[in-house]
Amino acid sequence: MASPRSWFSIPKGSPFSIANFPFGIISTKESPNLRTAVAIGDHALDLAAFAANNGFSAISTIQPHQAVFSESTLNSFAALGRPIHSVVRKYLHSVFADDTPYPDVLKNNAQLQQEALIPLKDVTTHLPMKIGDYTDFYAGKNHAYNCGVIFRGPVNALQPNYDHLPVGYHGRASSVVVSGTPIRRPNGQILENPAAEKKVPIFSPSRKLDMELELGAFVCKSNPLGSPVPIAEAEESLFGLVLMNDWSARDIQAWEYVPLGPFNSKNFGTTISPWVVLADALEPFMVKGLQSGVELLPYMQEKRKENVYNIKLKVDLTKTAKSGTRTTITRTSASNLLFSFPQMIAHHTIGGCPFNVGDLLGSGTISGTDPTSRGALLEQSENGKVSIKLDGGEERTFLEDGDTITITGLCGEDEEGLVGFGECSGTVEPAIKLDF
Amino acid sequence: MASPRSWFSIPKGSPFSIANFPFGIISTKESPNLRTAVAIGDHALDLAAFAANNGFSAISTIQPHQAVFSESTLNSFAALGRPIHSVVRKYLHSVFADDTPYPDVLKNNAQLQQEALIPLKDVTTHLPMKIGDYTDFYAGKNHAYNCGVIFRGPVNALQPNYDHLPVGYHGRASSVVVSGTPIRRPNGQILENPAAEKKVPIFSPSRKLDMELELGAFVCKSNPLGSPVPIAEAEESLFGLVLMNDWSARDIQAWEYVPLGPFNSKNFGTTISPWVVLADALEPFMVKGLQSGVELLPYMQEKRKENVYNIKLKVDLTKTAKSGTRTTITRTSASNLLFSFPQMIAHHTIGGCPFNVGDLLGSGTISGTDPTSRGALLEQSENGKVSIKLDGGEERTFLEDGDTITITGLCGEDEEGLVGFGECSGTVEPAIKLDF
Repeated sequence: MASPRSWFSIPKGSPFSIANFPFGIISTKESPNLRTAVAIGDHALDLAAFAANNGFSAISTIQPHQAVFSESTLNSFAALGRPIHSVVRKYLHSVFADDTPYPDVLKNNAQLQQEALIPLKDVTTHLPMKIGDYTDFYAGKNHAYNCGVIFRGPVNALQPNYDHLPVGYHGRASSVVVSGTPIRRPNGQILENPAAEKKVPIFSPSRKLDMELELGAFVCKSNPLGSPVPIAEAEESLFGLVLMNDWSARDIQAWEYVPLGPFNSKNFGTTISPWVVLADALEPFMVKGLQSGVELLPYMQEKRKENVYNIKLKVDLTKTAKSGTRTTITRTSASNLLFSFPQMIAHHTIGGCPFNVGDLLGSGTISGTDPTSRGALLEQSENGKVSIKLDGGEERTFLEDGDTITITGLCGEDEEGLVGFGECSGTVEPAIKLDF
Repeated sequence: MASPRSWFSIPKGSPFSIANFPFGIISTKESPNLRTAVAIGDHALDLAAFAANNGFSAISTIQPHQAVFSESTLNSFAALGRPIHSVVRKYLHSVFADDTPYPDVLKNNAQLQQEALIPLKDVTTHLPMKIGDYTDFYAGKNHAYNCGVIFRGPVNALQPNYDHLPVGYHGRASSVVVSGTPIRRPNGQILENPAAEKKVPIFSPSRKLDMELELGAFVCKSNPLGSPVPIAEAEESLFGLVLMNDWSARDIQAWEYVPLGPFNSKNFGTTISPWVVLADALEPFMVKGLQSGVELLPYMQEKRKENVYNIKLKVDLTKTAKSGTRTTITRTSASNLLFSFPQMIAHHTIGGCPFNVGDLLGSGTISGTDPTSRGALLEQSENGKVSIKLDGGEERTFLEDGDTITITGLCGEDEEGLVGFGECSGTVEPAIKLDF
């Protein structure tokens, strides 16, 4: 899909260009009911209002399904399947094109523009999907290696299984929140002195609160118990992507994670961006990912060589509590993954695990190879040993109360055809005080 | 609650005595809509029919809530809270008592008996709750020790954290199924020769398919993100218990589980019994659990000493595929737990993790100390080294296709006042054949 000019005013450099049309759930002060919208430039197009005013009447494929846009999550829309998502997106694209074949729908319809095009600043965004299960993978090989070195030393940094399967764990769906939700620093058990012979934990607010730069992918297709999704069909299960911050308490994690994996160190909050960028919109930006050199088992082998996305990712730390200065602490590309989402889906279901529409997959933390491209403070600070300099003179090893982490992601070079995610943002609140 | 005689014929030794009243979701051939029932003797009392025929009209507390019994899960009933569960159970108890103060409700109402009391053999039971998140703990210390010895040797069998917190991991809610659902043997990656220098997995059906004897607990109260549930209030979150078989593929597990925990080795199926035994009904059977001797951090300290349930548990293996002979392979008590469900809830939420009504907690595998009390074949067979003798002359180390595992659990000694769960049962189907 090329990106022609639009009759609608879309700021140059907007992540929500005419080439994008990401889907989200919004409400406004005037109309507090949750409903579907797409983001376009600095506006949200309210699809419930658009549908109610015959916006889709030109398209017979969509008409029978319009009620989904009045629902409070995207699940029913997602469940319609990728061919329908594609029709809807292409139609919206043509409605906004300068030479739209449907000028009466919106271009020449000042009343519907007034009703359905809402400035983003006046919109509240909500969790876009009702999430059934959430799985977090660990496919950012540079990150996995860096963390492995910190926790187990360079010899055992990566386990023998790492190159053969996308290592992952079941996450906590209930703690996934939308961008803007404050994140409270967790209390928990911490082993202050891991070298001591007697290992007795203390109770404390986490002192090593971290972020993790990830992609999230939503599933739009279910499979029954006992029926794997073949890798050749796995792309059909990909609804779209969001940015994700998998907040992590490293000191709680270090104590709790053996032998069953991370638990309370992760389940106090996972932030996702509100606009789901459709898999279709990201297709033009696919590139080759990281290569391990091992031959994968057949159930994991993909035909396409370009299987991950070249999304330019950026993490900013804003010292909300103090100066308000914003420092970019990480720049990297989402192509730094050893496995693709279709590979993750094929592996996840190979034993028969069922997916439901709305399930969320995390990519694992995405890091490049140089220090400023590392997607977690654990790696950047080498577990607290090296300070990260912030603009304005402060330093960080881990997050302080009041710090805001904002992730952005953008595809493309054409300033009028960018495909981006908007912001995935969260501010750290002080730990709750507990009296015993 | 004592167990007086009932005017209704309840077989001696029934797990569903007048002291129980477990809740489930049923349908029948004649009425395929899902609805709530309680089990009583060999019958289910259809609470939707009971409510529709003024069964609850004597009880003003219940009347405004009767619509919940026509829903397809117990979630709305659970969300009413333990005081309401208690009122409903006590009322049903009084309706069935020989000297019922409400004889016209059911005892003398042949028509309602005909309509609402359905023989269990004519009833299909369904998953009782819509499960949000499922967490599986590892609080069966004897099991954890035995497994630790097998996987890591006796020195590192239990990690230093084990006695200080209930170790657990997030499980896969989508793969929890109700008793009777067949379980397909999973395919997956297996490392045939772990001692080999070059560690390359093969693709194979699991050769070490196992069961795990557990209790499951359903949550009936939500807490928001960032707000821990204090241990003194955690019992209010306990709706009721079920039996659980956490099917496990040990060879897949051994290869995949480092460093993030079990994944495909568990998410191909977890079976629960259909009748939720209310926490209230189990109160009389509380006993002291396992003791570690370490002083717990204050947020984990309970006032009551008796904090786990003395449920007599039994695992039977039936060779469906061959002779049909049924052998009891495990007998133990559910008191073999180091932590209680309230402790698990307090720990799980201490960092701010939110619970929703319908969340499921697994206890971890329950084993006693002698070999015939071990709750998993991994332990009984010492990872395949020792054969388990079955009645009729066969042997097992792990499960074969066609094998049926049936867990039962029973509290009490009075044959007319037993509180039990019925069966948690599943049959192993051959792995799916995949062509590449």
